[in-house]
Amino acid sequence: MGKDIYRKRLKIPMNKEVLAFLSSLNDDLWIAEEDIVGTEVHDIMLHEQGILTKEEISQILKSLEKIKKKLINSTLVLNESFEDIHPFIEQSVIEEIGMEIGGKIHTGRSRNDQVAVDLRLKIRKELNQLSGGLFELCEVLMDLSERSQHVLMPLYTHFQKAQLGSFSHYLNTYLEQILRSLERIEEIYKRVNANPLGACAIGGTNIDIDRKITMELLGFESIVFNSIDAVSSKDYLMETMQCLALMALQFSRIDEDLLVWSTKEFDFIEVDEQYCSVSSVMPQKKNPDTLELIRSGCSNVITNSFNCAMIIKSIPTAYFRDFQDLKPLLKDSFDRIHAIGALLKGIFSSLIIKEQNMRLAIQNSNILALDVAEFLVRQYNIPFRLSHEIIARLSRGERQGLNIYNKIELEKMIQDVTKKNLTLPDDFEELFKDPEKCIEKRMSMGSPSRSEIKNNLILIREKKEKLSEAHGKRMNKLKKAESLLSNKIEELS
Amino acid sequence: MGKDIYRKRLKIPMNKEVLAFLSSLNDDLWIAEEDIVGTEVHDIMLHEQGILTKEEISQILKSLEKIKKKLINSTLVLNESFEDIHPFIEQSVIEEIGMEIGGKIHTGRSRNDQVAVDLRLKIRKELNQLSGGLFELCEVLMDLSERSQHVLMPLYTHFQKAQLGSFSHYLNTYLEQILRSLERIEEIYKRVNANPLGACAIGGTNIDIDRKITMELLGFESIVFNSIDAVSSKDYLMETMQCLALMALQFSRIDEDLLVWSTKEFDFIEVDEQYCSVSSVMPQKKNPDTLELIRSGCSNVITNSFNCAMIIKSIPTAYFRDFQDLKPLLKDSFDRIHAIGALLKGIFSSLIIKEQNMRLAIQNSNILALDVAEFLVRQYNIPFRLSHEIIARLSRGERQGLNIYNKIELEKMIQDVTKKNLTLPDDFEELFKDPEKCIEKRMSMGSPSRSEIKNNLILIREKKEKLSEAHGKRMNKLKKAESLLSNKIEELS
Amino acid sequence: MGKDIYRKRLKIPMNKEVLAFLSSLNDDLWIAEEDIVGTEVHDIMLHEQGILTKEEISQILKSLEKIKKKLINSTLVLNESFEDIHPFIEQSVIEEIGMEIGGKIHTGRSRNDQVAVDLRLKIRKELNQLSGGLFELCEVLMDLSERSQHVLMPLYTHFQKAQLGSFSHYLNTYLEQILRSLERIEEIYKRVNANPLGACAIGGTNIDIDRKITMELLGFESIVFNSIDAVSSKDYLMETMQCLALMALQFSRIDEDLLVWSTKEFDFIEVDEQYCSVSSVMPQKKNPDTLELIRSGCSNVITNSFNCAMIIKSIPTAYFRDFQDLKPLLKDSFDRIHAIGALLKGIFSSLIIKEQNMRLAIQNSNILALDVAEFLVRQYNIPFRLSHEIIARLSRGERQGLNIYNKIELEKMIQDVTKKNLTLPDDFEELFKDPEKCIEKRMSMGSPSRSEIKNNLILIREKKEKLSEAHGKRMNKLKKAESLLSNKIEELS
Amino acid sequence: MGKDIYRKRLKIPMNKEVLAFLSSLNDDLWIAEEDIVGTEVHDIMLHEQGILTKEEISQILKSLEKIKKKLINSTLVLNESFEDIHPFIEQSVIEEIGMEIGGKIHTGRSRNDQVAVDLRLKIRKELNQLSGGLFELCEVLMDLSERSQHVLMPLYTHFQKAQLGSFSHYLNTYLEQILRSLERIEEIYKRVNANPLGACAIGGTNIDIDRKITMELLGFESIVFNSIDAVSSKDYLMETMQCLALMALQFSRIDEDLLVWSTKEFDFIEVDEQYCSVSSVMPQKKNPDTLELIRSGCSNVITNSFNCAMIIKSIPTAYFRDFQDLKPLLKDSFDRIHAIGALLKGIFSSLIIKEQNMRLAIQNSNILALDVAEFLVRQYNIPFRLSHEIIARLSRGERQGLNIYNKIELEKMIQDVTKKNLTLPDDFEELFKDPEKCIEKRMSMGSPSRSEIKNNLILIREKKEKLSEAHGKRMNKLKKAESLLSNKIEELS
Repeated sequence: MGKDIYRKRLKIPMNKEVLAFLSSLNDDLWIAEEDIVGTEVHDIMLHEQGILTKEEISQILKSLEKIKKKLINSTLVLNESFEDIHPFIEQSVIEEIGMEIGGKIHTGRSRNDQVAVDLRLKIRKELNQLSGGLFELCEVLMDLSERSQHVLMPLYTHFQKAQLGSFSHYLNTYLEQILRSLERIEEIYKRVNANPLGACAIGGTNIDIDRKITMELLGFESIVFNSIDAVSSKDYLMETMQCLALMALQFSRIDEDLLVWSTKEFDFIEVDEQYCSVSSVMPQKKNPDTLELIRSGCSNVITNSFNCAMIIKSIPTAYFRDFQDLKPLLKDSFDRIHAIGALLKGIFSSLIIKEQNMRLAIQNSNILALDVAEFLVRQYNIPFRLSHEIIARLSRGERQGLNIYNKIELEKMIQDVTKKNLTLPDDFEELFKDPEKCIEKRMSMGSPSRSEIKNNLILIREKKEKLSEAHGKRMNKLKKAESLLSNKIEELS
Repeated sequence: MGKDIYRKRLKIPMNKEVLAFLSSLNDDLWIAEEDIVGTEVHDIMLHEQGILTKEEISQILKSLEKIKKKLINSTLVLNESFEDIHPFIEQSVIEEIGMEIGGKIHTGRSRNDQVAVDLRLKIRKELNQLSGGLFELCEVLMDLSERSQHVLMPLYTHFQKAQLGSFSHYLNTYLEQILRSLERIEEIYKRVNANPLGACAIGGTNIDIDRKITMELLGFESIVFNSIDAVSSKDYLMETMQCLALMALQFSRIDEDLLVWSTKEFDFIEVDEQYCSVSSVMPQKKNPDTLELIRSGCSNVITNSFNCAMIIKSIPTAYFRDFQDLKPLLKDSFDRIHAIGALLKGIFSSLIIKEQNMRLAIQNSNILALDVAEFLVRQYNIPFRLSHEIIARLSRGERQGLNIYNKIELEKMIQDVTKKNLTLPDDFEELFKDPEKCIEKRMSMGSPSRSEIKNNLILIREKKEKLSEAHGKRMNKLKKAESLLSNKIEELS
Repeated sequence: MGKDIYRKRLKIPMNKEVLAFLSSLNDDLWIAEEDIVGTEVHDIMLHEQGILTKEEISQILKSLEKIKKKLINSTLVLNESFEDIHPFIEQSVIEEIGMEIGGKIHTGRSRNDQVAVDLRLKIRKELNQLSGGLFELCEVLMDLSERSQHVLMPLYTHFQKAQLGSFSHYLNTYLEQILRSLERIEEIYKRVNANPLGACAIGGTNIDIDRKITMELLGFESIVFNSIDAVSSKDYLMETMQCLALMALQFSRIDEDLLVWSTKEFDFIEVDEQYCSVSSVMPQKKNPDTLELIRSGCSNVITNSFNCAMIIKSIPTAYFRDFQDLKPLLKDSFDRIHAIGALLKGIFSSLIIKEQNMRLAIQNSNILALDVAEFLVRQYNIPFRLSHEIIARLSRGERQGLNIYNKIELEKMIQDVTKKNLTLPDDFEELFKDPEKCIEKRMSMGSPSRSEIKNNLILIREKKEKLSEAHGKRMNKLKKAESLLSNKIEELS
Repeated sequence: MGKDIYRKRLKIPMNKEVLAFLSSLNDDLWIAEEDIVGTEVHDIMLHEQGILTKEEISQILKSLEKIKKKLINSTLVLNESFEDIHPFIEQSVIEEIGMEIGGKIHTGRSRNDQVAVDLRLKIRKELNQLSGGLFELCEVLMDLSERSQHVLMPLYTHFQKAQLGSFSHYLNTYLEQILRSLERIEEIYKRVNANPLGACAIGGTNIDIDRKITMELLGFESIVFNSIDAVSSKDYLMETMQCLALMALQFSRIDEDLLVWSTKEFDFIEVDEQYCSVSSVMPQKKNPDTLELIRSGCSNVITNSFNCAMIIKSIPTAYFRDFQDLKPLLKDSFDRIHAIGALLKGIFSSLIIKEQNMRLAIQNSNILALDVAEFLVRQYNIPFRLSHEIIARLSRGERQGLNIYNKIELEKMIQDVTKKNLTLPDDFEELFKDPEKCIEKRMSMGSPSRSEIKNNLILIREKKEKLSEAHGKRMNKLKKAESLLSNKIEELS
C-alpha cells in the first residue's frame, strides 16, 4: 500500500515529518473497533437499500470481520504511511477483495460522519463502563458507611473544628455526590447515543441511504437530524468532558480529605501500604503517593476539558481537522477517571479508621459550643444572638482557664450578657460529656445523628437502585442491538 | 452599628484594608433579595414549629419587609463596616426591633446553609430568565430560517467550499444546539432547585426545625438531605457554570461564522449598523465590533467556569471562605450570557442576507464534485472510490482548463480510470447547472434539500414547544410558592 | 455631546443595550490619566514638528490639563453615550476650544496606537508599584527570618515529617522565590517600556511625526518599530499576566503552608485576629478567612492569564475589538496581587510562632532517621543503601517498640542486615537527643544549619539590594522624563 | 530484580494496578540520560571529597556508562516492576557491581534533588534546541521578507481592510515576535541552568558534599542555594511552560493568518500540497489540515501550562508526588513547539504568494481613505477630525456611486463639511492610483514604506545576530563542561 487512496486530488505524497504531525493513526486504535462496526452497519444498510448486492455485502463483511479479529487479537499491523485509520481500513478491504467491490464501502458516507459515529459509539461504551465502576465504588462506600455509623468524628469548616459528627456522615456526602454524577451520565448518555451517520461530509448525499436502519443496528436511540449539526457540533463531547471534570473535582476534594486525615498531625485514617511509597533516602517515610497522584490526575481531567473548549472555540461551524486533537484528550480523561475510581474503591476498601484518634480530637475541644448555645436557647429562651455571644466570650477567654462546659463560669457569663440570673441544671456538665448522647440531640433532617445517618443510607440506597436499573436498561438495549447486528453479519457474510 | 455582631469571639475589629479584601458586601447585593426571602421563610417555619411566637414573627417579618422594600427601591444604604450582607441584615433587624426578638432570627441556622439557599434561589431565577431569553432567540432564528429556505449557500469544511447547502440549514444547526442547551438547563434546574436550609453550619441543629416547610415555601422541589453535602458540595454551581460555558462555546462559533461571512471577501451577510463601530482614523471602516466582543465575552464565560473549578479544587470537603469568590464569577457569566443572547437575537433580527453573493460563490466552483461523483455511482455503478478518483483527477487539472462538469473531459477521465467506455447523457451539463435542482437530489434525511429543511423546522418547533411547556410548568410552580409565601407574610405580619 | 464624533461613517447612533455591552468607558478610567498624558505628548511632538502652531498647542494643553485635574480630583463626569474614553476626551477638548484647533489633536494617530501607549504606561506604573510592594514584603520576611533562626521545625515532604529544619529556612525559601519574581519583573519591564505611538491604525501615517520625541517625553526606553507589531502584538501584556500568575502560584503555596500550620492539629503558628473571621453560629470558631481568600484570589490571578490567552488566541494578527476585554483582567490581576502582597506583609509582621509546638513535633518522631543512616555511612562505611535498609526496618517495626535511636536495637539490626558486628559508641543515643546539635551536622551548602541559614540570608540581602538598585534606576529615569514633560507643558501652555 | 530497593520500610510490594497508576517509568526515559549523567557527576564529586575510593568510583562509572550506552542504542530493557527510573538504575548498578560498592551511589543525595537536576538539565537542552530551531525559522522568514518587499497587500483590522501595506511588513511582525521569544528564552535559561543537587530530600545532608564541584561538572552557572527551594520551587518549570505557551499564542495567530489567507475568498497565498490533506468524499477538496492541527496543537501547549499551574497550586511548599505529572506535560509542550516551529519553517519556505490577488484586493477599495484624509490635513490644514468626517461621509454614500478618490465629489463634500471652497489639484486622482507611490508617502518610522521595511529588516538582523551570539556562548560553555566531564569519566573509570 503506497499513497493514501484519498489523495488523488494531490500530485505528491505527504512529507514524512508532516505525516508524523498530522497522523492520528495510533490514537485511532482507541476507536478502531467502533470504526469497523460503523462501516459494517453502513454497508448492511446499503445492501438493504439495494445499493450493494448480496455478493458484494458478503465479501465486504467477511473482509471487515477479518480485520476486526486481527484488531481484537492485537495482530493488526498498521501501515504508518496512512494519516488515519479510515483510509487504512478501506484500503485493506480493497486490497483483499478488489476495487470493484471494495471500492464501494464508502458510498454515501464521509470521514466526517464516520468519525462522529466512532466517537459516539466509543463515548457510549466508556460512559457505560464508568457507570459500572461508580456503582462498585458506591457499594464499597455504602458498606463502609454502614460499618462506621458509630464512629464519631469532628466535622471541620475552614480547617477548624466545627461540629461533632461522624465518619459515616462524610462517606454519605461522598455518595450523594457520586450519585448525582451517575444521574448526569444518564442525561448525557441520551444525547450521546444518537446517530450522526448519513450526514456525509456536511450536506447529506444523493445516495438513497436510510438513517433509521443504521440507527437501529448501532443501538442508537435517535438521529442527529441536521447534517451540519451531525458533523460540526461537539457539545456531546464537551458535556462528557465537563461531566468527567466535575467528577474529578469531587474526587479531588475527597482525596484531599484523605490526604489531610493521613497526616500524623490529624492521624484519623491510614491508607493501606499498597497505596503508599517510600523515600529513597529517608528510611522512616511512608508517603500516601497514590493520593497525591490522584490529586494531580484530577487536574489533568479538569484541564483536558478546558483544552477541548479552547480547541473547539477556535473553530467556526463545520468540520475542521482541529477536532482530531480532541480524541486523545477524551481518552486520557476516561482512562484517568476509570483508574481513579478504581483506586478510590481499593483505598476505601482497605482503609484503616483510627476511631480512638477521632475521639481524642473531640475531647478537650470546644466542638459542642453550638450545642451549648442551642441548649440555652431551648431551655431558657435566650435569643440565639445573645446565647452565641455568651459562648463566644467564654471561648475567647479559653486560655485563662474558662471552659464553655463549666456550669459556674457559664452562669456568670449568662448574667454578664443577659443581666439575668439563671441556674443551670446540676447535671449540666454531664449533658456534654458523652458525645454519643450529644449527637442524638441533633435531630434535624440530614444531621449526623444515628437515625438520620440511617435515613440517609436508605435514601442513598434507593437512589442507587433506581440509577442502577436505568443503567441496566441501557445495557440491555445495546445487547439487543449487538445481537441483531451479529445475526445480520452472520446471515449476510 | 459598629463591630460586626458575629465577632464576639475576637477582641479586635477588623483592619480596614483587610476588610476591603474580605468583604463581599457589594457583591452580595446580587443575592440580597433572596437572602431576605430565605430568612423570612426560615423564621415563618420557626414560628410554625412553635419556636417563635406570633408577636415575634410579626415584628420580624415587618422589619424584613421594610429592608426588602428599600432594597427593591435601591434606597438601602450598606454599612461598609460589615464583611457581608448577612450580619448587616440581622443587625438592621436587631437595631429596629430590639435584641429580645431580633436576636432570634438566626436560630437554628448558619451563614453556611443561608448562603447556599441564596445561591440556589438566585441561580434558579437566572436559569429561568435564561431559558426565557433563549426561547426568544429561537423564535427569531426559526422565523429567519423559515424566510430563508430558498437561500442557497456554499457549505464549508476546513474553510474550503464543500457542498451546496442553504442558509436555512445553518440556522437550523444553531437552533438544534440551543435546544440542547435548553434541555440541559431543564436537567440542571432540578438539581439546583433543592433545599439546603436546615443543614446549619455543617452538622445540623438541636433546634426543632422542619426542612419540608421551608422547602415548600421556597418552591424547592426536594431537599439536599445530607448536611455536609448541603453546605460543601458545589456541583450545582459548577454544572451551571459548565452549562453556561458550553453555551458560550456554541455562541462563539456562531459568532465566528458571522464574523467570517461579514468580511468583504466572503460578503455573505451584513450586520446592522447599530452593532458596528467605526475607526478613529480610518474613515472608510465599519467594523462589526459587537461580534468581536461577543467572541471575547464567550472566552470570559468559558474561563469563569475554569476559575470556579480551580477555586473549588483547592478545598477539602466542607465550607471554606474561598467559596465567596465563586459568586462574582457566577454573576459575570450569567450577565454575559444574557447579554450575548439578547445581542444575537438583535443581530439575527436585523441581519442582511446577501443572497446574490452566496449564489455567486456557488457558481464557477467545483462545489458539486461529490454530486457528480455520486451521479456516476448511481447511473453507472462505478465504485465510489473510483468515481472519487475520476473527479479528483479532473479537479487537480483544473488550472489547465479541465472542468468537472464538462461531458467530454469527464468521459475521457472515466475511461482513463475505469478503462470503460461510457457515454454520458447529452443533457449531462444541464444536470448541474441549476443548484435548485441539484439540491433536491440530496434526499438523505437531514440534508439541505427543501423538504428536509422543512422537516427539520417541524422537528425543531416540536422540541421547542415541549421545552417551552416544561419551562412554563417550572414558572407556575414558583408562582404558586411565591403567592403561598406572600399570603403567609401578610397573614403573619 | 450627542453622537460619538468618530461615527460619521454610520447613519444611526448606537442602540443603548448594544452600547452597554460595547462600552469600556468605566473600565477606561483605569488608564484615563495615561491617555491624557499620551495625547499631550503626541501633540507636543506635533508642535515640535511644525504641525501644530504655538497657539494651537497652548490651547490644547490647557484644555487637557483641565480634564486631567478633574480626573485626579474625581470630579470628571463621564458621558455614558460614548463607547470609550478616547472620543470622550477628544470631544471634550473640541467642545471647549473649538473644532478648528481641537479637531487637530488626533492628527497622525489612531485609537489603536493610542490605547497601546496607555496600556504600556499603565503596566509600567503597576509593575513599579508591585516591585515596591514586594521589596517591603521582603523586608518583613528577612526581618522575621533573622529573628527566628533558632526556631527549629520539622520539614515535611508529602505532608509527612521528613527532616529536621528551621522556620527561618522556610522563610528564606519564600524570599528566594519572591526575588526571582522581582528579577522577572525587571526583564519584562524593558519590553513593556517601549513606544508604540506612531504606528497609527496599523500601517503608519503620512503625517511627519517623530517617534523618538514621544519616546523620550514618555520615558520609554525604546520604540516598537514595526507598526503592525505595535498595535497587534500582545506579548508584553501576556507576559505580564503570566508573571503575575506565577507570583500567585508562589503566594498560594505560601498561603497553603500558613493554612495548614494554623490548624489546631499542626498548631505551629497563629494568624493575628485582624486577619480572622468568626462563625455566625459556632461561637468557638476563629477562622483564618484571609488566608482562604488569598488562596481563591490566587486562582483568579492565574485564571485571568488563561482568559487573556483564550481571548488573544481567537484573533489573527492585527487589531480587533476583543482586546478591550483584556484590560479589566489586567486591572483585576494587578489589584489582587497588590492586595495579597500587602496582606501577606501584614500577616507575617504579626504572626505568632508557636516554637514549643514545633519542638514537640520534632520530639518523639523519627525525623532524624536519615541523620542516623548517614551516621552509619560516615562512621562505619556502611553503603548507604544498606544503612537505609537498616533504619527502614527499624522504622517498620516502630509499633512493636523498636526505636531507631535505640543503641541495642540498632546494633542488632545492623548485624541482621550487614552480617557485621558493630559496636556503636556509648553516647550514641545522646548524639540524637539535642536537635540543635543535630542540625549543626547538616553542613551541606544551603542546608538549615545555623551557618548556612546565615549565609542564605546574606545572599538574599545581596540579591535584594541589587534588584532594589535597578528598580531605583527605573524610577529615576521616569522622574526625569516626567519633569521634562511637565516643564514642556508649563512652557507651552 | 524483585521488590523496589527503596521499599524496605513497607511490608508488601505494590499492587499491579496501583503500580500502573503510580509508575512514571516510561515517561522517565525522556530524562534517563540526564539522570545517569547526574549520578556520575554526583559520584565523581563524592570521590573527589574522599567519600568514594578510586576503585569504587571506577567500578561505578563503568557500570553507569554501560547503562548509558544501552540507553543511547535503545537496547535498555526496563523492568516494569519499578515505580520510576531512579531505583531501576541504582538496582542495575548494584546487581552488576555488588552492594558493597553499588550501594554507595546514592550517598548524600535524594530522589528529590536528583529529579530536580534531571529536569533542569533536560529543560536546558530543550531550550537550546528550541533556540536553534527558532533561528532557522527566522532565517526562512527574513529571506522571504527580503524577497517580498515589493509585494503590496491590504492590512486588515477587525477583518476589514484598513491600510495599504506589504506582505513583508507582516513577516517582519512575525520576526519581531519570535525574536522577543528568543530573548525570553535567554532570560529563563539562566534561572533554569542552576544546580539543585545537594539539597537532598529537603534539608541537606550530613555527608561532606561539595555543590560547587557538581555545578561545574554539570555546566550549571549557579547554585539553587536554599535546600527547600531546590526541591520544592517549580517556577523554573512554570516559566518555561509559560514561555512555550506564549510562543504557541504567537504561532497560533500567525497560523490563523495563513488559514484565512488560504481561503478561496481571500486567496492571497497557497500552502504547498505536502501540508494539505484531502477529503474522503469530496474530490475537489484540498484542505490546509496542517494549519488546523497547528492551531489545535497551540491550544494544547497553552493548556498544558494551565495544567501545570493547577497541579502546582494544590501543593504546599515542599516536595509532593503530584510533581511527577508535570514531566509529561513539559515533554508534550516541547515536542509540539519543536514540531510546529519546524512545520512553519517548511510552510513559509514553500509558500506561494499570490501577488496579483493581493493587488486586486487593494484596487476598487477605499483602503487609501486615511491617506486622502491626511492629504487634506497636510495640504489644506483641515483639522483631522473634519477631514475624517469628509471622507467618512463620502464612504457612507459609497453605494450611490460616491467615490473618495473623485475630485469633484470630494470638493463638494469639503465644502459641505468645512464651508470652505477648496480646489484640489488637477492630478488629484492620479495621486492615489499607484499604490507603490502611495506607500512611499507613509514615511513614519516603522511603516510599510520601502525604506522603513528595509530599516526594519536591518534591525531584525541585528537583534537576531546578538541573540545568536548569546546562544553560541551558552552552547560553548556546555561543550566545555561536557568535555571536562567526559575526561574525568575516562580518567576515573
